Amino acid sequence: MQNFEYYARTKIIFGKETENSAGSETALHARRALLHHSGGHAVKSGLIDRIKDSLKAAGVEWVELGGVQPNPRLSLVYKGIDIVKKEKLGCILGVGGGSAIDSAKAIALGAANDGDVWDFFERKKTASQSLPVGAVVTIPAAGSESSNSCVITNEAGPWKRGVNAECNRPVFAILNPELTYSLPPYQTACGICDMMAHIMERYFTREPNVELTDELCEGALRAIIRNARRIFSGGEKDYAARAEIMWAGTLAHNNLLGTGRVGDWASHPISHEITALFETAHGAALSIIFPAWMQYNIKASAGTTEDTARFARFAAKVWGVDGAFYGPEQAALEGIFRMKNFFRSIGLPVSLAEANIDASRIGEMAHRAVKFGPLGNFRKLEEKDIEAIYRIAGEM
Amino acid sequence: MQNFEYYARTKIIFGKETENSAGSETALHARRALLHHSGGHAVKSGLIDRIKDSLKAAGVEWVELGGVQPNPRLSLVYKGIDIVKKEKLGCILGVGGGSAIDSAKAIALGAANDGDVWDFFERKKTASQSLPVGAVVTIPAAGSESSNSCVITNEAGPWKRGVNAECNRPVFAILNPELTYSLPPYQTACGICDMMAHIMERYFTREPNVELTDELCEGALRAIIRNARRIFSGGEKDYAARAEIMWAGTLAHNNLLGTGRVGDWASHPISHEITALFETAHGAALSIIFPAWMQYNIKASAGTTEDTARFARFAAKVWGVDGAFYGPEQAALEGIFRMKNFFRSIGLPVSLAEANIDASRIGEMAHRAVKFGPLGNFRKLEEKDIEAIYRIAGEM
Repeated sequence: MQNFEYYARTKIIFGKETENSAGSETALHARRALLHHSGGHAVKSGLIDRIKDSLKAAGVEWVELGGVQPNPRLSLVYKGIDIVKKEKLGCILGVGGGSAIDSAKAIALGAANDGDVWDFFERKKTASQSLPVGAVVTIPAAGSESSNSCVITNEAGPWKRGVNAECNRPVFAILNPELTYSLPPYQTACGICDMMAHIMERYFTREPNVELTDELCEGALRAIIRNARRIFSGGEKDYAARAEIMWAGTLAHNNLLGTGRVGDWASHPISHEITALFETAHGAALSIIFPAWMQYNIKASAGTTEDTARFARFAAKVWGVDGAFYGPEQAALEGIFRMKNFFRSIGLPVSLAEANIDASRIGEMAHRAVKFGPLGNFRKLEEKDIEAIYRIAGEM
Repeated sequence: MQNFEYYARTKIIFGKETENSAGSETALHARRALLHHSGGHAVKSGLIDRIKDSLKAAGVEWVELGGVQPNPRLSLVYKGIDIVKKEKLGCILGVGGGSAIDSAKAIALGAANDGDVWDFFERKKTASQSLPVGAVVTIPAAGSESSNSCVITNEAGPWKRGVNAECNRPVFAILNPELTYSLPPYQTACGICDMMAHIMERYFTREPNVELTDELCEGALRAIIRNARRIFSGGEKDYAARAEIMWAGTLAHNNLLGTGRVGDWASHPISHEITALFETAHGAALSIIFPAWMQYNIKASAGTTEDTARFARFAAKVWGVDGAFYGPEQAALEGIFRMKNFFRSIGLPVSLAEANIDASRIGEMAHRAVKFGPLGNFRKLEEKDIEAIYRIAGEM
C-alpha cells in the first residue's frame, strides 16, 4: 500500500427534498452567488425555482447563468468568469449533472486566479486556489459533486481536457434521488457506466496489498449492477434503487476507492477522443472502450499470469464467474462477456459500430490520445496500443 | 434509505513516516498547541520527540500534557482545559490511541465552551463548537481520529459516557502503520474487535434498502478478519497487514458505513458497564458482549424470520457460512460460533468467566446500563433484556 492523503471535505446532504437547503448551505460561504445550470429540464421541472426560493429565504443574492451543454464548453466558462468578477460573486452553485458542476468548477477556478483558465487544462499552470463551489446533482454519473476533477471542452480543437486539483472539490453537495426519476433511460445508463468506470479505473492497479479498497470497490460495483437492473426492470421511480445508484456515483469518484494505490486511467482519455470527434455521450464511449481495454490487456499479458489474475478476480467477485470451472484467462474473458451483456441490457453500445462511429478515424483518435504522452498505469499504452484497443472496439 | 448528512471533514495523512508532518499540519490551525499523550511507549519509542522536532520546524510552540490512561479520566480533561485557557493554546494535538484522542477532544470541547464540560456528557447541553483537534494515531481501534464521538470516564461514578457531535471531528489525522508494530498482541486484538464492533453496530439495522452500505460493511469486515489472521500468524511487522487494519479502523467509524440508516448501538453501552466496574479493556468487553447480543436477538426473534435473516446474511457474507446447507437460524448461530472462534484465536475473551468478571454483579450492570432509558434500535432493550444478554455472556 502506498502512502496517501485523503481529504474528502465535501459536506453531503442526501435525501428527499434536500434541494431546499441549497440557500442555507450557500449562505455559509457567500452572500452573492452565481447560479449556474443547463436550463432545460432543471428549469421546466421547477427545480431552479425551488432553489431560487431557498436562496431568497437564506438572504443570498444571485446572478443566473444557464446554457451549460453536455461536454461543457470553454466559451461559457469564460462568460461565467467575467460575470463572477464583475458582479463580485463569492460562490458558484452548479445545478445539474457533471457538465454543470464541472463548468461551475472551471468558473470558480478562473475567477480565483489571474490569466487564462485554459492554461490549467493545458498543464501550463498548477491549480491551488478556487472559489467555493456548491452542487445540486440531478444526474448521478460523473461524481463531480465531491471529486477533485474538472473536465472542459475547448471548441477550438476540439480538445477535451481535465484538471485534477484539491481546490476543485465542492464545499457541499446536495443529492435528492427523486430528481433522477425523470432522467431518460439512456442518460441513466450512461451515468451508471460512468460511475462503474470511475471504480474500475481505480481497481485495475498493480499495487499489491490494497485488499480493503479492493473489497470496497467490488462491493460498490455489485450494488450498482443490482440496483441498475432494478431501475431497468420498471423501477424508474423506485426510490431505494435510485438512492443506491446516486450515492454510489458520489463514492465512486471522491477517491475513497483509490486510497493507497495508483489507478490506471487510460480508458477515460481513450474514450474522450470518441466524444471529442463524434459527440458520443461520455458513458457510452466508456461502455465501448472499457471492455476493449480489458480484452487488450488480457491478450497483451499472455504468459504473465499475474496480470490475468487481476481480471479473473474481477470476473469472479463482480460478475460471479465461478473460478472452479474456468482457467484464469477464460474466467477473465467470461467476465468481459458478462459486463458487455450488462451494458447492452441497459441500452448502451459496446462497439464502435453500435454507436455509429466511423472506424476510418481510429488512427487519428489514437494519435490525438497520446498528445501528452503514453496513457495508463496498469499497462503503459503507446499510440499503437491505443489504436489496437480502438480496433478491438471496432470488431466487437 | 433515510435522508442523511455525511461530512467526514478530517484530512487523512496515511503511511510511512507521516508523523513528521504533525508540525506543518498543526501550523495550519494554530501557532500554539497542547501536545497531549499517554506517556509510556510514545515517549520511550522516540515518537513524541519526533513530533516535537516537527512542531519546532513548523514554528509551533507547545505545552505538553501526558498521563492519559485507558478509559480516559475526566480529572485529566479538567487539567487540560485549565492549561489551554491559561496558555491561550489554539489546537489540541492528541498522540496515542482512542484514549488520548478522546481526551484531546474533551479538552478542546471544554476549552471552547463556558461551564462544566461534563454537562455535555450528562446530556444537559448540546455541543456545537470546539477547538481544532489533530491526531497522531498509534493504536488502530477506536476510530476516534475521524469520528464525531468522544468517550470519557468520570471517576466519581465511575460513569463512562460519550458525546457525539460534528464539532468533535479532528481536523487532521496522521496514521503510520509502522507505529503499530510494537503493540502488545492483546492490544492489537482489542483494537481489531473494536473496529469490527463499530461496523457491526451500523450493520445491524432494520432500515431496508441500504445495499451499498451493506456491501461496504461486509467487505471491510472480511478485509479486517483476513489481515488480522495475517498479523496473528507471525505478521507483527507485516506492513501491508498493519496498514489494512489501520485504515479499516478509521473507515469503520467515520460514519461512511452508517449512511442512510440507524445503527443499533446497544452493545457498546452494555460493554461500557463491564469496563466501568472491572476495567476490562474496551475491545475485550465487546468480544464478550457482541456474540451474546446476537444470540439474544436470534432467540428473541423466534418466529420473525426477517430478524434472523439479517444474522444469517451476516453469517454468509462475513463468515462464509453456506446458506445452502443451513436453515436461516442455524446459519445465524454458525456465524456467531465462527465469530467467537475468531475472537478466541486472536486471544480475546468471549465469556464473562474468561475475563474474570464476577457474574454476581450482572443485575447491577443491567440496572446501570439503562440509566438514560432502553438501549438499541435493532431491538429496544429494557433492563431485563440486558440482564439476559449478560447472562448469555456468563454461560458461554
